[in-house]
Amino acid sequence: MNLNPDPKKTNNLLISQPMIERPLILISNDDGITAPGIIALVNAVKDLGEVVVVAPDSPQSGMGHAVTITRPLRLDQTKLYGEIISYQCSGTPADCVKLAVDKVLHRKPDLLLSGINHGSNSSINVLYSGTMSAAMEGAIEGIPAAGFSLCDFSYEANFMLAAKIAREVAINIINNGLPKGVLLNVNIPKTDAASFKGTKVCRQALAKWEEEFDERKDPNGRKYYWLSGKFVNFDNGNDTDEWALSNNFASIVPVHFDLTAHNAIAYLNQWNIKHED
Amino acid sequence: MNLNPDPKKTNNLLISQPMIERPLILISNDDGITAPGIIALVNAVKDLGEVVVVAPDSPQSGMGHAVTITRPLRLDQTKLYGEIISYQCSGTPADCVKLAVDKVLHRKPDLLLSGINHGSNSSINVLYSGTMSAAMEGAIEGIPAAGFSLCDFSYEANFMLAAKIAREVAINIINNGLPKGVLLNVNIPKTDAASFKGTKVCRQALAKWEEEFDERKDPNGRKYYWLSGKFVNFDNGNDTDEWALSNNFASIVPVHFDLTAHNAIAYLNQWNIKHED
Repeated sequence: MNLNPDPKKTNNLLISQPMIERPLILISNDDGITAPGIIALVNAVKDLGEVVVVAPDSPQSGMGHAVTITRPLRLDQTKLYGEIISYQCSGTPADCVKLAVDKVLHRKPDLLLSGINHGSNSSINVLYSGTMSAAMEGAIEGIPAAGFSLCDFSYEANFMLAAKIAREVAINIINNGLPKGVLLNVNIPKTDAASFKGTKVCRQALAKWEEEFDERKDPNGRKYYWLSGKFVNFDNGNDTDEWALSNNFASIVPVHFDLTAHNAIAYLNQWNIKHED
Repeated sequence: MNLNPDPKKTNNLLISQPMIERPLILISNDDGITAPGIIALVNAVKDLGEVVVVAPDSPQSGMGHAVTITRPLRLDQTKLYGEIISYQCSGTPADCVKLAVDKVLHRKPDLLLSGINHGSNSSINVLYSGTMSAAMEGAIEGIPAAGFSLCDFSYEANFMLAAKIAREVAINIINNGLPKGVLLNVNIPKTDAASFKGTKVCRQALAKWEEEFDERKDPNGRKYYWLSGKFVNFDNGNDTDEWALSNNFASIVPVHFDLTAHNAIAYLNQWNIKHED
């Protein structure tokens, strides 16, 4: 199942080389090293290569692409995963990946998998997601990478289907490679195997959170706020991740880290920005 | 100077409408509400509309697009800016924007300006930058937004040129609008007015940080790590922000929040992802 595609057929993207027989697989997440989702991911792929886990020592949800530059980081080996080497880190998911490459693996892994997140990271959540920031950090480093999220926030969520999809995606990356600079944002619906329709390659839906801050008073009478809100999808397309998930497909969105809005450059070049008095 | 462009001439982008006479301008940053850079920005634009400042109560550099969901937020009015309404917030730059819209302004501002950051946010730094995450949060909310950064980390940096550019960019946004979903990442080189060449609309350069963790031991003999590193530019293009900045231009990169790697979708559709036993 090695597609080994001709770069010319894929819009001149360079495809990363299919990998060595027993790849070195780095696994991280944002829910913390003890979360059921990362345990499910490790178990799903541990026979595909040499697995090493470097993950936060506490939950880091909503950390976006944060990195820790104002305080030092701790990195401690654990025995949580038996024979599989594992470290917990006091930093963010992006810190975990940076430290893993530099201080644990001493080389780039052949594959980086992040998750399985407890809760959706579809659509605009890709920006807020610590799970995806670990995968993004991998892609920036030139490591084939994917993040996995199950659309179920519950601690008791059933990761069976998500683990199966994660394994299949990992096998495809190992066998086929990924286009240079591209990582995958994979979301799995909360559904059972019987209702599940399969995977669908999608674009990121245009959607956002409508904030509702819960205003409260502390015992001293001072106000404080809890961030909450509801997710609103403005996108009617049937090629989006939101459409796929609400129709019982797992969504696979190829993501890149070039944030340039290339088609706005011509417009901005019409502007007249003075800089001399 | 109202270009009021025909959407058809700008790749079918919808251009946000040119604004009302006295726009409501929200200002935030990531260096904190007392930083010289945000003071310079407020002073540069305060006559262009009604300015309101909502910024972090402490430095938030490197926070990426983090949002605070595991602890409550504080929001307190300050008198730091005289007659200009200002609030300090215990959260991240993205939190500041969300709280400002919901609890201070009670409506979307007409313009969101973030910065002026102490240090560059060019190229890949757009992902790690709290300054840019405030602007990004604005764009997600449909607010015309721009982030400004001076390529000088010093607390004593001279913000004169950067403030002038920020003002000119703000005037252009007010008069012309921005394409829908597009924000601006504006970086100003550390140079004097005589050597400065003007502004240049650019794409994000392909560059990254090569990490070097500084390994130390605490007084108890336990290891800890400081994140440091050097910035490496792999991009030879003369249309990038890195090229502009190293040639004494200020760089203006249009940025969007659709992270989909659209040209990888066809390739991924060739994959065979099994989901049935």
